[in-house]
Amino acid sequence: MDRVKVTKLSGFPEYLPAERIVEQHFLDVIRRTFELHGFTSLETRAVEPVDRLLGKGGDADKEIYGVTRLADRGAETSSREPDLGLHFDLTVPFARFVLENAGKLTFPYRRYQIQKVWRGERPQEGRYREFTQADIDVVDVGELAPHFEAEMPLVIAEIFAQLPIGRMTIQVNNRKIPEGFYQGIGIAPEDVAGTLRIIDKLDKIGPDKVRALLVEAGRSTEQADQCLALAAIRTEDLSFVERVRGLGVEHPLLDEGLEALAAVITAGLDNAPGAMVADLKIARGLDYYTGTVYETQLEGYESWGSFCSGGRYDALASDGRTTYPGVGISIGVSRLLGLLLGKGLVTASRATPAAVLVAVVEEDSRAASTSVARALRSRGIPCEVAPSAAKFGKQIRYADRRGIPFVWFPGEGDVSHQVKDIRSGEQVDVDVDTWAPPTEDLKPSVVASNPNP
Amino acid sequence: MDRVKVTKLSGFPEYLPAERIVEQHFLDVIRRTFELHGFTSLETRAVEPVDRLLGKGGDADKEIYGVTRLADRGAETSSREPDLGLHFDLTVPFARFVLENAGKLTFPYRRYQIQKVWRGERPQEGRYREFTQADIDVVDVGELAPHFEAEMPLVIAEIFAQLPIGRMTIQVNNRKIPEGFYQGIGIAPEDVAGTLRIIDKLDKIGPDKVRALLVEAGRSTEQADQCLALAAIRTEDLSFVERVRGLGVEHPLLDEGLEALAAVITAGLDNAPGAMVADLKIARGLDYYTGTVYETQLEGYESWGSFCSGGRYDALASDGRTTYPGVGISIGVSRLLGLLLGKGLVTASRATPAAVLVAVVEEDSRAASTSVARALRSRGIPCEVAPSAAKFGKQIRYADRRGIPFVWFPGEGDVSHQVKDIRSGEQVDVDVDTWAPPTEDLKPSVVASNPNP
Repeated sequence: MDRVKVTKLSGFPEYLPAERIVEQHFLDVIRRTFELHGFTSLETRAVEPVDRLLGKGGDADKEIYGVTRLADRGAETSSREPDLGLHFDLTVPFARFVLENAGKLTFPYRRYQIQKVWRGERPQEGRYREFTQADIDVVDVGELAPHFEAEMPLVIAEIFAQLPIGRMTIQVNNRKIPEGFYQGIGIAPEDVAGTLRIIDKLDKIGPDKVRALLVEAGRSTEQADQCLALAAIRTEDLSFVERVRGLGVEHPLLDEGLEALAAVITAGLDNAPGAMVADLKIARGLDYYTGTVYETQLEGYESWGSFCSGGRYDALASDGRTTYPGVGISIGVSRLLGLLLGKGLVTASRATPAAVLVAVVEEDSRAASTSVARALRSRGIPCEVAPSAAKFGKQIRYADRRGIPFVWFPGEGDVSHQVKDIRSGEQVDVDVDTWAPPTEDLKPSVVASNPNP
Repeated sequence: MDRVKVTKLSGFPEYLPAERIVEQHFLDVIRRTFELHGFTSLETRAVEPVDRLLGKGGDADKEIYGVTRLADRGAETSSREPDLGLHFDLTVPFARFVLENAGKLTFPYRRYQIQKVWRGERPQEGRYREFTQADIDVVDVGELAPHFEAEMPLVIAEIFAQLPIGRMTIQVNNRKIPEGFYQGIGIAPEDVAGTLRIIDKLDKIGPDKVRALLVEAGRSTEQADQCLALAAIRTEDLSFVERVRGLGVEHPLLDEGLEALAAVITAGLDNAPGAMVADLKIARGLDYYTGTVYETQLEGYESWGSFCSGGRYDALASDGRTTYPGVGISIGVSRLLGLLLGKGLVTASRATPAAVLVAVVEEDSRAASTSVARALRSRGIPCEVAPSAAKFGKQIRYADRRGIPFVWFPGEGDVSHQVKDIRSGEQVDVDVDTWAPPTEDLKPSVVASNPNP
């Protein structure tokens, strides 16, 4: 018995049954596609030592949730156990797992990880305090072959193509392109990262403000204009190479970057035409990306920002002797569902897995209905036995409220079993060992729907 | 780059790829079976207000982990937000969810919930600080039909029958039996719960010590002997009724309990013969159970205790006006896997979902291998393209180390595609649009294995 007041917690989304079926469908598609590509599943513990979460810089921006046994509260420092916090992404625990288990893993290690993460941020639209991420990464020992950078967006494109959402574009760039280009126009190596950080604001504040910020940061107006010209290049095919060349800048790092990006875009054109675009303004804020970087935009919802991002990094982790380079990409599942469910853009055909409600004629014959249900389940048909031997009209309404499409009326002796499709009203004689619902009704379907007014 | 020291955390299990495949198999079987029975999925947030976790009694036994933003540490009381903790089971959040969303749910509400829970206990064999539970419950408004008490163990029996484990017995009792029986032999109603708690120690300390404790608690030696005689009754069929009657005790609550337990056992005999046993010593420690109670034992590992427990409760939750009775059962997935993986009783056939490794002839022809992989995936065959165009022997060893059974050698022009089963060495010409691995090789299989020496 529990009469404690119910408290809604802002930023901690929870789904009702039909919404959860949408989420499960998304997660199932993601998992199935990851596995089709030979990624192995990893689940790490929810907590890490706080010093690992903070990283070398002691960066407290991530709004980490600390975790302490209630009995130990107020005594954090005296505890013999490490100070713990909830992970705020899946990369930090993955890096730690690789270091901890390097001797037991086979490399290149292809892992996927679909888990909740936590951030104590101020909740706002599209931002949560608890949310689900779906990550893939390939890490290797010492060196990582460049073809993995082309593989990541192909996996993601395959997922988005299966989901009931609008057009999702994967924007790809290579950090070596701006880095080489900037050096080629005379920007000092130590100013490259700062320049990139300013360019990264382009979508938010526009070219005029970016130009002003660049000049304020010490770039010449000519350099600022060249940077903006580079950032304006966006092509679905390989023509970005020509357009960059047309800007007349030369640098070996630029050549490397163009070649690498061309390889990624070529793989996209071959395997997922229309899914990718070379977009030379994409920078990704995180300092550790060193090659290809990815972001995504959902058509019509560009202001929501990226739902899936990642890139190539030279050092996921290092134990001092061995370094593990890799490439990864992460789908913000909760952010995407927050948009789609919040705006009514996607819906489930029913609020239960059950395809059939087996009616109960009278309470004394419930065993006969249970027996029908058992036969259907043995053939993979999800079903539920009616909760009470109410009038059939009431039992049908019970199915209707949940969206269960079929009601089964058990036969006995000379009376046939019958199934009613409660959408059409059609009712037919059926056999318990052979009848099955149409394939499209076996599981709830999840489809795009009209946006809420 | 991350050189922070790697810290193993005791009580937070993490699985390597092949072990995780075993866990996924168990969770998939559990989920599929829950859904076949028409249970809808629920995931609740990981945190609840601490006062809700502690309950009315402020019971701190549960070793709750408190959660506080690092920035707010040391200032818990001044915070305007509720004091939060990680849930230690799935029942407390489920009860809160039902109260919070009663108006949007349809009753009886059948939900399953498979999630991590956290307890700050001292880690020991079979006990974790982070572990996965898989729960089903049916709750209704005001009244709950008794047939749901028979349904729960049938779902569980179906799950255990599909898992590669030894014989799991579901022990069923009804709390009304001991409660009525005790009152029938003159134990005062206020002493019933205490008597039951002592009887519950039977498996741990044996009948002699239990008898002594009962007498110490004020029961007569005759009463103690009668309690032990009742607790000794364990039958696979309905003969427990006769045996209780043979003890010559009469009480209306006892009659009710016997009838209810007979109904559950009858459903078991009809639908899952051999899976259940009426075991009249089963009490379950939790005070809120009021009818049927369940525990389970794995043959040969009885000392590990129950891997799956639950029961009927009259009030999961109440908002003061409406009460929600229910019945539920919970599988301790991590505890079960801790035993099975720890003792080497179960194993996965491979450490990756990939059934095929597509070899790469030379790095320049990687696109041809990618194209083969895409064709196989489009037909649901999980595969991976070789990470490098090494000598074929090395590519085969790469597959072998992961347990990938097939290596595909891409053809070109007049050269046929070929597939090698690396277990038998057999290599055959194949067509990219029709070849498929045998069904048993499509996914990793998870099977019982010999225990570790």
